[in-house]
Amino acid sequence: MHMSIKVAVSGASGYVGGEVLRVFSAHPEVEFGALTAHSSVGDTLGAHQPHLRHLADRVLVDTTAENLAGHDVVVLALPHGASGEIAAQLPAETLVLDCGADHRLASAQAWASYYGGEHAGTWPYGMPELITATGHQREALPGARRVAVPGCNVTAVTLALQPGVAAGVVEPGDIVAVLANGYSGAGKKLAPHLLASEALGAAVPYAVGGSHRHIPEIIQNLESAGAGEVRISFTPTLVPMARGILATVTAPLAPGVNVEAVRDAWEAAYADEPFVHLLPEGQWPTTAATLGANTALMQVAVDGKAGRVVVVCAIDNLVKGTAGAALQSMNVALGLEETLGLSTIGVAP
Amino acid sequence: MHMSIKVAVSGASGYVGGEVLRVFSAHPEVEFGALTAHSSVGDTLGAHQPHLRHLADRVLVDTTAENLAGHDVVVLALPHGASGEIAAQLPAETLVLDCGADHRLASAQAWASYYGGEHAGTWPYGMPELITATGHQREALPGARRVAVPGCNVTAVTLALQPGVAAGVVEPGDIVAVLANGYSGAGKKLAPHLLASEALGAAVPYAVGGSHRHIPEIIQNLESAGAGEVRISFTPTLVPMARGILATVTAPLAPGVNVEAVRDAWEAAYADEPFVHLLPEGQWPTTAATLGANTALMQVAVDGKAGRVVVVCAIDNLVKGTAGAALQSMNVALGLEETLGLSTIGVAP
Amino acid sequence: MHMSIKVAVSGASGYVGGEVLRVFSAHPEVEFGALTAHSSVGDTLGAHQPHLRHLADRVLVDTTAENLAGHDVVVLALPHGASGEIAAQLPAETLVLDCGADHRLASAQAWASYYGGEHAGTWPYGMPELITATGHQREALPGARRVAVPGCNVTAVTLALQPGVAAGVVEPGDIVAVLANGYSGAGKKLAPHLLASEALGAAVPYAVGGSHRHIPEIIQNLESAGAGEVRISFTPTLVPMARGILATVTAPLAPGVNVEAVRDAWEAAYADEPFVHLLPEGQWPTTAATLGANTALMQVAVDGKAGRVVVVCAIDNLVKGTAGAALQSMNVALGLEETLGLSTIGVAP
Amino acid sequence: MHMSIKVAVSGASGYVGGEVLRVFSAHPEVEFGALTAHSSVGDTLGAHQPHLRHLADRVLVDTTAENLAGHDVVVLALPHGASGEIAAQLPAETLVLDCGADHRLASAQAWASYYGGEHAGTWPYGMPELITATGHQREALPGARRVAVPGCNVTAVTLALQPGVAAGVVEPGDIVAVLANGYSGAGKKLAPHLLASEALGAAVPYAVGGSHRHIPEIIQNLESAGAGEVRISFTPTLVPMARGILATVTAPLAPGVNVEAVRDAWEAAYADEPFVHLLPEGQWPTTAATLGANTALMQVAVDGKAGRVVVVCAIDNLVKGTAGAALQSMNVALGLEETLGLSTIGVAP
Repeated sequence: MHMSIKVAVSGASGYVGGEVLRVFSAHPEVEFGALTAHSSVGDTLGAHQPHLRHLADRVLVDTTAENLAGHDVVVLALPHGASGEIAAQLPAETLVLDCGADHRLASAQAWASYYGGEHAGTWPYGMPELITATGHQREALPGARRVAVPGCNVTAVTLALQPGVAAGVVEPGDIVAVLANGYSGAGKKLAPHLLASEALGAAVPYAVGGSHRHIPEIIQNLESAGAGEVRISFTPTLVPMARGILATVTAPLAPGVNVEAVRDAWEAAYADEPFVHLLPEGQWPTTAATLGANTALMQVAVDGKAGRVVVVCAIDNLVKGTAGAALQSMNVALGLEETLGLSTIGVAP
Repeated sequence: MHMSIKVAVSGASGYVGGEVLRVFSAHPEVEFGALTAHSSVGDTLGAHQPHLRHLADRVLVDTTAENLAGHDVVVLALPHGASGEIAAQLPAETLVLDCGADHRLASAQAWASYYGGEHAGTWPYGMPELITATGHQREALPGARRVAVPGCNVTAVTLALQPGVAAGVVEPGDIVAVLANGYSGAGKKLAPHLLASEALGAAVPYAVGGSHRHIPEIIQNLESAGAGEVRISFTPTLVPMARGILATVTAPLAPGVNVEAVRDAWEAAYADEPFVHLLPEGQWPTTAATLGANTALMQVAVDGKAGRVVVVCAIDNLVKGTAGAALQSMNVALGLEETLGLSTIGVAP
Repeated sequence: MHMSIKVAVSGASGYVGGEVLRVFSAHPEVEFGALTAHSSVGDTLGAHQPHLRHLADRVLVDTTAENLAGHDVVVLALPHGASGEIAAQLPAETLVLDCGADHRLASAQAWASYYGGEHAGTWPYGMPELITATGHQREALPGARRVAVPGCNVTAVTLALQPGVAAGVVEPGDIVAVLANGYSGAGKKLAPHLLASEALGAAVPYAVGGSHRHIPEIIQNLESAGAGEVRISFTPTLVPMARGILATVTAPLAPGVNVEAVRDAWEAAYADEPFVHLLPEGQWPTTAATLGANTALMQVAVDGKAGRVVVVCAIDNLVKGTAGAALQSMNVALGLEETLGLSTIGVAP
Repeated sequence: MHMSIKVAVSGASGYVGGEVLRVFSAHPEVEFGALTAHSSVGDTLGAHQPHLRHLADRVLVDTTAENLAGHDVVVLALPHGASGEIAAQLPAETLVLDCGADHRLASAQAWASYYGGEHAGTWPYGMPELITATGHQREALPGARRVAVPGCNVTAVTLALQPGVAAGVVEPGDIVAVLANGYSGAGKKLAPHLLASEALGAAVPYAVGGSHRHIPEIIQNLESAGAGEVRISFTPTLVPMARGILATVTAPLAPGVNVEAVRDAWEAAYADEPFVHLLPEGQWPTTAATLGANTALMQVAVDGKAGRVVVVCAIDNLVKGTAGAALQSMNVALGLEETLGLSTIGVAP
């Protein structure tokens, strides 16, 4: 049996849109319909995404409800604040995958505090592996027709820490996360600090001191996994790579917990996960091993002297952090095999 | 119908071996048998190739004829000089794909001059797109059971220039090729000039002045495409990227040839090629657009004042330059669809 | 004796302006006056050039003749087309060093053909090492009060090839130059192809096919060194580094010239040059060895089979290619020791 | 008055040795005597450090007490464990600057625990800015003839946090430090994980979980600055740059401390320091701004929700982290102006 899924992609000229096209192209049932853009309307896709040879001659059309109508799935890769209005014009039976932030947060107050403006509402959250009170978030997705794809930094930090939170072996009240981030996470935006000359040979912090918009989403996720009060110091830093997130996440070891119990928590949490892998003891993850793949690789250690658990988690921000998560959620929402069309094979070196 | 092709890979812990495993994994009929190594015997593949999650638990065995026996296909990713002996011990009906240089040159004299030592012999050359006196090299490959996979630099320069040579619009007697090369082309060799601290932020020439071992292979290919005497100045330079070759290749415009005839020659040569693409006029290729893909992207221009045709060709040295070429040749040799399991979709940015 | 030289720098918030400030800061007689900018007027320099700690509190003022008046030396680091008008308003006794292209070309026709618009006129050319009919360009600079600082690519190619041209051991009629360029050469311009995500991991050609504006300047220089008709195929490529040019330049070996005569030509030409060094035989230059220094490092080889001389020349585009050349020219123009305040020590690794 | 200081450098072919030569070359009183090496004895320095043009012809000699005798200053850039023996053979009046770890720790037990083997003893610690019970470490250095140069990571973390520790505005019992490190910190060692192909495009953790040898040195320093019990989770990560450390360091805000008091602590601590700069509010440091300079740049923020102070500190690991610290200590030890010959001007972009 062959079911064809007709997919429209908005923001197709950007980095997220391009990656959605790359990742979804590997899915055996996907066919692309409208590819939409804003300032690039009328251009061929090949002018903006020369790596997508099979779609090079496709012409970009305007991002309107008309152009996005008539598809089974619509992927929105738009600046935040833009997806609510367009989604409202799409039929209820269309599966809308929003790669932006608009519909991730349950709390309108958190939205107002970190993003400002009116909260567009809350959609089912597209992280199948998220631990919830009743199991995993994947159980909440079948049949969903609106899905909020998680933030990339959020994915790395959540996957890194939730096993310990759920098992009660770490204390969520004093988490510190520092991330090494590739530049594609900032999008194809023309800003001086994103120029190659600034990036090459340099490490650069941004959004230090508690202001990053991914913080409330991380807190929401760890609460889902069972945390009481979550407090987190979160600092992303740009390093000279195009893709990848290496998240170093630490939390206090809960009183009386031994080293074995820590490793057990992570092993148990991810033993059956197809895309989240605890590496063998002693092997640490690198972003290179996840490039282009829908995998999160991690390692956990206990620093007895510091009294902290340290987890290092590597993902490709554009795949497991965005486009892969979108496809994985699509599979679950549509009742397909969760892993269909998703690769765990990275491109290295 | 499902035909299973059992493939052994020697040198599986190196960069070429790892890429063979990555690329061949996408082929619907391939199953991996023995994965062999030298100093890493007994290790899991995951310790050396952490990006290949699906093979992480496979254990590396010694590179012996016994271990390589009993496979339909054996891929050799060994240092030059090592493949002749091992191939001689493999059955004639086994398809042996040699990623090394040993069996590429037809001329024992050229071998002696550039490599030294005894020439191991000449195998059918694994570049299906190579123009030959009677058509293309792909016609010589069906049924072959020994295939010499081309060199990566050779692939970039040959594909760049052969349309003009074959059409007689360039003169092959004074070619100049300068290449920007990623570091993986040098293999996982421990040498001071390959250290990250030397590479980062630097451009570095090597093998300048006519000594590079890829020169006789380029000449052989252009002669295949119809050239009379070929003379080439060839300079590779290492630049700070892990993968990719950007070859800038120029040759004198043949007398009386006009600009249209030049573009026509390239368009005609590659119009039907699935993996070699002349970009639309005005668009120049980047290595980023070929990363991970079995594509060669190129553009051609005539510099009237200089009296030269300039071609820029981008490939991924490990894919179209090695592992992809091996798989493509395997398809043709075994009578499968040439494109089976090979992707033209790059990973960018 | 201490002579204080009061220097104004226009375009101080850009890459060239910043490098002028860095390089001139090492000169024992220089004191900075006005630092001018355009859109950044009113900002501190520290907001734009955080590496220049000693000038961090200086406030940027507007680029006007009033602000630039009253200095001994004015350095113009402006977009091309802008320097002629401002220079015309400065006193004749002020030394104006123009880092832009406006006053480099002697031929108004060449200007019109490559840049368009009206030619601003020709100033003495700020490359002391340039070979001229009567010796070197340094003899033309003392007392000059208007100096056109050479282009960075031009510097690399000219220094690479002029010894062979002057000695008659190469033929200038069929030169091929391919350059690996760092991104700072493109300036702090907001353009999509200059974004970090595009640059990282990629090699990218630009201005292929004879259109690059540095071509007529190279031709002019090689004619100065004694060439008859010069023809050059010139292709710069962007590679992932912030600074540096590695120029691979080849020209046909002149008939009857032997290998020793070639090396002799380069050795003789640069034996007494303080900033241009032919490396010992067998050692090839890297851009890393020139980073931050006012040096051009090179090596020359004869490729007998190709019938070509190959020269590889490395410079820092912002130092020997721009700001260092400006300071060196200032020294000569003002009658100071040519090497005063200029360093040959690179920052590596 | 001119005093000539004759300096010998051991390990001159390595990255630290090369940087000592570069940095010390800017000192007006320094003259180099013996340059020693191990496997490179007999080579010219130019073969290993092509960026040091002025010393290119110097020949490397063996690292022996004989060769190091007769100098005013001997800089040791040797693997740890090697400096004690050689120092014991040098006259007491020779100033020995040990860039290795052997003599940094006061506690023989800490040495045994983190390095193993016998403790070589404790030398005056070469970090003039270190806060001590009676003022600063610079007061302990005049007249010293044995100086232990600090570790590079240690320098970044100590400078980042000691103002808060000394002022009592942070609690030292639960520090978390995550560093982005350039590859030169690992030395010119031939190891697979230091190859360019592994580094390019990747972020890689190492020494996670409390094992890094710089931990006891950080603790010792913070105790010097007034801390009671120090506990620190410390994770360095390699990112694709040759130089630089970006340290993100957090510690709990002490109870009842307000935001102004935090900033005041850092401002007061470094207001008079020539090489340690708190940036204006809102400006965050980048490693690029410190490249080649003897500066530590930092910013501090209070994350009220997380209850933590976050400091980001950038240094060049080879300058302020090593060779610059050595020269600065030499100045103080010999009674010279502390800043003599040391630059605060970075090389950017």
